[in-house]
Amino acid sequence: MTAQLLDPTTLTRARTEAMTGAEARAYFRAGLRVPTVDWASRYAQTNLISVPKDVAYDLLLFAQRNPKACPVLDVTDAGSPTTVLAEGADLRTDLPAYYIWRDGVKVEEVTDATDHWRDDLVTFVIGCSYTFERGLLDAGVPLRHHELGVTDPMWAVNIECRPAGRLSGPLVVGMRPVPAHLVATAVQVTARYPSVHGAPVHIGDPAALGITDLQKPDFGDPVPVGDDIPVFWACGVTTQAAVIASKLEFAITHSPGYMFITDVPDATYAL
Amino acid sequence: MTAQLLDPTTLTRARTEAMTGAEARAYFRAGLRVPTVDWASRYAQTNLISVPKDVAYDLLLFAQRNPKACPVLDVTDAGSPTTVLAEGADLRTDLPAYYIWRDGVKVEEVTDATDHWRDDLVTFVIGCSYTFERGLLDAGVPLRHHELGVTDPMWAVNIECRPAGRLSGPLVVGMRPVPAHLVATAVQVTARYPSVHGAPVHIGDPAALGITDLQKPDFGDPVPVGDDIPVFWACGVTTQAAVIASKLEFAITHSPGYMFITDVPDATYAL
Repeated sequence: MTAQLLDPTTLTRARTEAMTGAEARAYFRAGLRVPTVDWASRYAQTNLISVPKDVAYDLLLFAQRNPKACPVLDVTDAGSPTTVLAEGADLRTDLPAYYIWRDGVKVEEVTDATDHWRDDLVTFVIGCSYTFERGLLDAGVPLRHHELGVTDPMWAVNIECRPAGRLSGPLVVGMRPVPAHLVATAVQVTARYPSVHGAPVHIGDPAALGITDLQKPDFGDPVPVGDDIPVFWACGVTTQAAVIASKLEFAITHSPGYMFITDVPDATYAL
Repeated sequence: MTAQLLDPTTLTRARTEAMTGAEARAYFRAGLRVPTVDWASRYAQTNLISVPKDVAYDLLLFAQRNPKACPVLDVTDAGSPTTVLAEGADLRTDLPAYYIWRDGVKVEEVTDATDHWRDDLVTFVIGCSYTFERGLLDAGVPLRHHELGVTDPMWAVNIECRPAGRLSGPLVVGMRPVPAHLVATAVQVTARYPSVHGAPVHIGDPAALGITDLQKPDFGDPVPVGDDIPVFWACGVTTQAAVIASKLEFAITHSPGYMFITDVPDATYAL
């Protein structure tokens, strides 16, 4: 792919939202580091995590045992930087930002993971709730983080995932404030997307999840809640919480909010 | 569980259909070998496959890459004969019939797999389309194999699954004849059950799948089609076709139609 790239500072939001996945990836491959919230809005964005092959079974099992948080959309063969979800994509370079993890600690953030790549890395492409956001907007549910152009706020909460082998950790949830009269609509719309987190895991009571301050997320950006009801969906950053809790020796992940954008239309994942 | 078992020959269909999963399993544990089609009709029945741990990753990946055919509902730890889906169940004894496989060949059918069990076996509990049959009946879609009290007919067809490691093989489908005016209803109902095969993979043209005679299934029993439309759903017996095609050194599976019955209500898997 040899796309003609424009000066990123001249790109309007309408322009970035109208892009295909391939067009967006070309900018990130070239080094642009921006949150993907308003890029390629018709195409499925995903979480990413690469782990050594000897822990890949545990991670695949962890995902199977925690499907709301970790819906696996593709798994690469060891060492391969390609995925069936995006033709011509290079998983080492085509995300705007990566975290490098050692012994469960984030040691670096990079815009190109090539120097950290290993032949034994198996990469998991995991569904992201951004995929159902077009469905929410079409149903009249406002999205505060979209209005602000920021990443949705996320927390590691007091619900433990079901462990698998060496992997354990808390559930991570993302929050969207929803007007009370639209909460049922938000549930119905998102339930139609079971492979990208599906229906909410919790509605209305942050304290029950152990969240003490809705303006201080563990990941992403704060958004005002006002009179809306806070609605919580399971989030693929759960895999990063497992890297931390399990002190995993090595992993590469996306940076929360800086997602991998596929060529798969969002609507493909709707029932 | 020390259920009082009745003489199986005295059990009416109404009685077996009204059983819980635990009640049904007690009969199978005691050695009763019958198809499970009209047993414990409110509870999810499943496919079962146990493989050595060294091939478990390949099987889990195969399932992830072929989710319509192989929706994984649970995976045990190596050697464990228990599952979170059925309290007190013993996966070695609680199915009415098992196949024992060596080098991709079915070498034995048994009603108790205990003598073949190994400490390195990882067991996969895989969704079964029986789970959406109550939904079909409630929506007025007749089920011919239910009327006859037999297992639905299945074929290994000319669609190759996406391979994973050592595992490859054809898709296996199950067929239900559906009156033409109810085909759309059957699609809509079953689409609501994505974790137990979901919507059909093919409707109306057996030849396109390479099926030459609807009265000669590869697995299960023939059912009359008459003026109905043959509708094909992906089937968990796909894992057995992969055992054959991949010449897997060892596996234990259920015998097609002789399923594992869980404690999970069918409705749990409906969106």
